[in-house]
Amino acid sequence: MVRERRARGRGCGAHPGGPEEGLAGPRGRVHIVGAGPGDPELLTLKAARLISEADVILYDRLAPPGALSLARGGAILVDVGKAPGRGPAQDLINRELVRHAEAGRAVVRLKGGDPLVFGRGEEECSYVLSRGIPCEIVPGVSSATGAPTCAGIPLGSRWGSSSFAVVTGRTAASGSPAPSLGALARAADTLVVMMPLSNLGAIASEASSAMGAGAPAALVLNGCTAAQRVIEAPISEIASAAAGLGPPAVLVAGAGAALRRRVLGGAP
Amino acid sequence: MVRERRARGRGCGAHPGGPEEGLAGPRGRVHIVGAGPGDPELLTLKAARLISEADVILYDRLAPPGALSLARGGAILVDVGKAPGRGPAQDLINRELVRHAEAGRAVVRLKGGDPLVFGRGEEECSYVLSRGIPCEIVPGVSSATGAPTCAGIPLGSRWGSSSFAVVTGRTAASGSPAPSLGALARAADTLVVMMPLSNLGAIASEASSAMGAGAPAALVLNGCTAAQRVIEAPISEIASAAAGLGPPAVLVAGAGAALRRRVLGGAP
Repeated sequence: MVRERRARGRGCGAHPGGPEEGLAGPRGRVHIVGAGPGDPELLTLKAARLISEADVILYDRLAPPGALSLARGGAILVDVGKAPGRGPAQDLINRELVRHAEAGRAVVRLKGGDPLVFGRGEEECSYVLSRGIPCEIVPGVSSATGAPTCAGIPLGSRWGSSSFAVVTGRTAASGSPAPSLGALARAADTLVVMMPLSNLGAIASEASSAMGAGAPAALVLNGCTAAQRVIEAPISEIASAAAGLGPPAVLVAGAGAALRRRVLGGAP
Repeated sequence: MVRERRARGRGCGAHPGGPEEGLAGPRGRVHIVGAGPGDPELLTLKAARLISEADVILYDRLAPPGALSLARGGAILVDVGKAPGRGPAQDLINRELVRHAEAGRAVVRLKGGDPLVFGRGEEECSYVLSRGIPCEIVPGVSSATGAPTCAGIPLGSRWGSSSFAVVTGRTAASGSPAPSLGALARAADTLVVMMPLSNLGAIASEASSAMGAGAPAALVLNGCTAAQRVIEAPISEIASAAAGLGPPAVLVAGAGAALRRRVLGGAP
């Protein structure tokens, strides 16, 4: 079962026509909303508005905790955070979205990053629409671009990166890095690997073969938060440099990683 | 010369210690801020705050016009929008940022999308920092991910896109598509081409050779705005389907483009 609680909000009390009434009616709808890479201030204005208007918010492990403080008093907050091997199944989340919307509620499904960049928003939106319920997807700052930008790493730059490739470091089907990683590392000026830590040795080895062992790499940990940390090393050494560190992380290798020093002028 | 005007703001009048005084002092600083793909509501909360606090805002052609309505009364608004063949040189923009910051002003450099995804924010930040002026880069929703998401196109999905590549359709040096486009189209599940229109025939031809003439493609025009329009066609036919259309546009080809119908259930 999923865990629900009520928002304290900002002391405004319950919303007229809100979840207490549980009225079936025209308000039932779902917004699948990207919450950005970690800093609650990197929510979009639209995300903040939808959160403040929502009757129910189902939120992910990677959605910034501070985002929920925007919820109105009495809103139902549902933690559906998944971690490897635990948390509610996707099918249960899909059904919860529909159940709340069918009860006439304004539902926000809040996700870290962008809902359609390795966020499974497509699965939820498709399911909701197939039940005849209105659904809108609201983009957020993806960690794929946001974490590098917060770290001063340009992905697209006329200084030497006319392309970048984004690949998952852990595919849903196999748990392994995407098989195209080597070919992408060869073809792109800059390679970005999401969720790299659990396979970092294999990823670095394959990228190293494709780009050369000395290719510059940067691992951005807790990107765009107060705890952000950037580890720079040649790609062949990045796994040992990052030993023992935990997610969330984004790995950048190639031209963009090399440009960081030029952007920041040697600042750490 | 660049064009300057004063913001009307929301009737609050001039800011104490603002640009009228022109005081050199500790307030001089630059924020290079991503304004997102087009909808002013897709600004981040941080962007909105910085705009409302700024003494001077230098803005791009692709920054959402509505974003400037957040400026305080009396703020200096400077249009430094560049278009092919016109607009101020990058060097002049760099120097204007420094000139205003050295006069003690809080400067916001507002850019469409994300400043480090083909936004030249790295050039401006590097220049400002090299003059000893504090500079921070604030990520925004990049059009590379935001426009596809607003169009219901997943770039990273366990339904069949474990990687995507982003490439410019017009490099700064040559005006041609990035030379790696074909290799990236072969290696990535989904290809995203920024600024594709001026070279759309050549881009589609190369992507078609790499992915097959029947590969699904979608051109997102005016993404994330009220004028958004999506044209879907096989990659070999997308250039003729888009004849006569103008920017801004993002081209998506491959797995992600094919998934759009599954996400939206056949909605237009």
